[in-house]
Amino acid sequence: MTSAHPVPFLRGHGTENDFVILPDPEGTLRLSPEAVARLCDRHAGVGADGLLRVVRSARHPEGRSMAAEAEWFMDYRNSDGSVAEMCGNGVRVFARYLERAGLVKPGELTVATRAGLRRVRLAGERAATGSDTSDGPAGGIGGEITVAMGRADLPAGEVTVTVGERHWPARRVSMGNPHAVAFVEDLAHAGRLLDAPSVAPAAAYPDGANVEFVVDRGPRHVAFRVHERGSGETRSCGTGACAVMVAAARRDGADPVVDGVPVTYTVDVLGGRLLITEDTDGRIEMTGPAVIVAEGVLDPAALPLTVD
Amino acid sequence: MTSAHPVPFLRGHGTENDFVILPDPEGTLRLSPEAVARLCDRHAGVGADGLLRVVRSARHPEGRSMAAEAEWFMDYRNSDGSVAEMCGNGVRVFARYLERAGLVKPGELTVATRAGLRRVRLAGERAATGSDTSDGPAGGIGGEITVAMGRADLPAGEVTVTVGERHWPARRVSMGNPHAVAFVEDLAHAGRLLDAPSVAPAAAYPDGANVEFVVDRGPRHVAFRVHERGSGETRSCGTGACAVMVAAARRDGADPVVDGVPVTYTVDVLGGRLLITEDTDGRIEMTGPAVIVAEGVLDPAALPLTVD
Repeated sequence: MTSAHPVPFLRGHGTENDFVILPDPEGTLRLSPEAVARLCDRHAGVGADGLLRVVRSARHPEGRSMAAEAEWFMDYRNSDGSVAEMCGNGVRVFARYLERAGLVKPGELTVATRAGLRRVRLAGERAATGSDTSDGPAGGIGGEITVAMGRADLPAGEVTVTVGERHWPARRVSMGNPHAVAFVEDLAHAGRLLDAPSVAPAAAYPDGANVEFVVDRGPRHVAFRVHERGSGETRSCGTGACAVMVAAARRDGADPVVDGVPVTYTVDVLGGRLLITEDTDGRIEMTGPAVIVAEGVLDPAALPLTVD
Repeated sequence: MTSAHPVPFLRGHGTENDFVILPDPEGTLRLSPEAVARLCDRHAGVGADGLLRVVRSARHPEGRSMAAEAEWFMDYRNSDGSVAEMCGNGVRVFARYLERAGLVKPGELTVATRAGLRRVRLAGERAATGSDTSDGPAGGIGGEITVAMGRADLPAGEVTVTVGERHWPARRVSMGNPHAVAFVEDLAHAGRLLDAPSVAPAAAYPDGANVEFVVDRGPRHVAFRVHERGSGETRSCGTGACAVMVAAARRDGADPVVDGVPVTYTVDVLGGRLLITEDTDGRIEMTGPAVIVAEGVLDPAALPLTVD
């Protein structure tokens, strides 16, 4: 049936990759692709890069097998309504919601996703360390959140990225999804990124590529812009930040562990700052902010959702 | 002081021109341009084309002189934080909020704006006529709202609009703000409208122009795309729809009143449909939908607002 009651939602972002969050612990909401697209529409709906439905793993067909290790399943949808496996910025916002709702405690946590289990570390609310809202936007909105992002795969062979008259050699990096990482002189050289940059040979990316344009900002400190497959330029891309870090570390010949601490790169995106580490086993972790900006209810007449 | 309490908000749209609504009857919120821009940011904030603050006229310095005729003042802000005089789609959403909140009854209503008093006619909730939410998105979200838009001014002399290799003659129309209305063969000929189309002679528009590209859909039925000064292409522009109607009616030599009914044009925009009428005295009215999609509270830590 169509919900006659207002459906609760929240809005949040991680480095300005923004999400609608739908708390649905018992898994009673039925989300058609059309309903998700409408909800994520930035003019007719609430607006978001994607949707995070929060369901108990035991109550979701794709989460059930992980329920013993992870109480909560992240049902992630793209803004066009399609189902997606994982989203690094989304997992941080998902964990922030769980903490804020009192469903988990700060510390270690495992989240179930379509890409499998993801370990998350919550630094805890900054408010608890003595700051308050008089600090402005950063005050009380919670500390950084760290997510295990898996390992990178770097196939041999360079590719070439082209924008207009400019060409750059680029490194192939897979983070489960395919990336082409090009080091450039100036981020403006990527142009407006209204269309996908061409990557040659095309055979290297049968399903298309996410393309990163990277500049150096200092020792182990880079910044990048990204064109995401199917989305265009975005303000942040979590797997892109990991791919960029790995490509930069290989280029720099970075020692993977210094004084027992895994190598860390500061990676700036248009929407903020991420810290990426890689340990001696190639395990990558991403640390960054996650912010809830508003919460409320959807109007059931304007944005109807079907409920079991 | 900075609000430590959550600030209530709503989100709504009129033909997909979308707004954050801040109910502030006593006028205690202090909205800096930075706070408005943050709130309207589509990734870091709630996201909107503009902000509608709902204040009692008697409690607003710019509304006080109109308080005897209009109880409510529409304090409109552009998404960049700047102050604006009027917004035709915004007035409908403003009136929808007042009705929904029980602050006015369906029927005639006068709203105070920086451009003066605006008469509004609320058709009343559709739900009251027997439909319900099983009708889908249109059910129960309220009927059409009509707003008096003033008179058009049509300075003599044609101008020329250019996009890429194409040129069109265009009509100058002022609705308080300046428009250049070009009739084209195909809306696609306007291209991506990423940059402002050039309008010559430039002296005709010392402050820049809103440029409309119009096609015919049938008798007294047109559709248009618009590039708005400072905003780029938008999904709807209320004054643009009025300018388009007037230009089409003049082109068609339309009889202003048929059987005692002012001439009406159906004007389609990317975000929906508007009806525009012009009576024998040149008074223009715009009728269209207004929808509230969600309501809730802003997180005071993420989106702090200053309160008196």
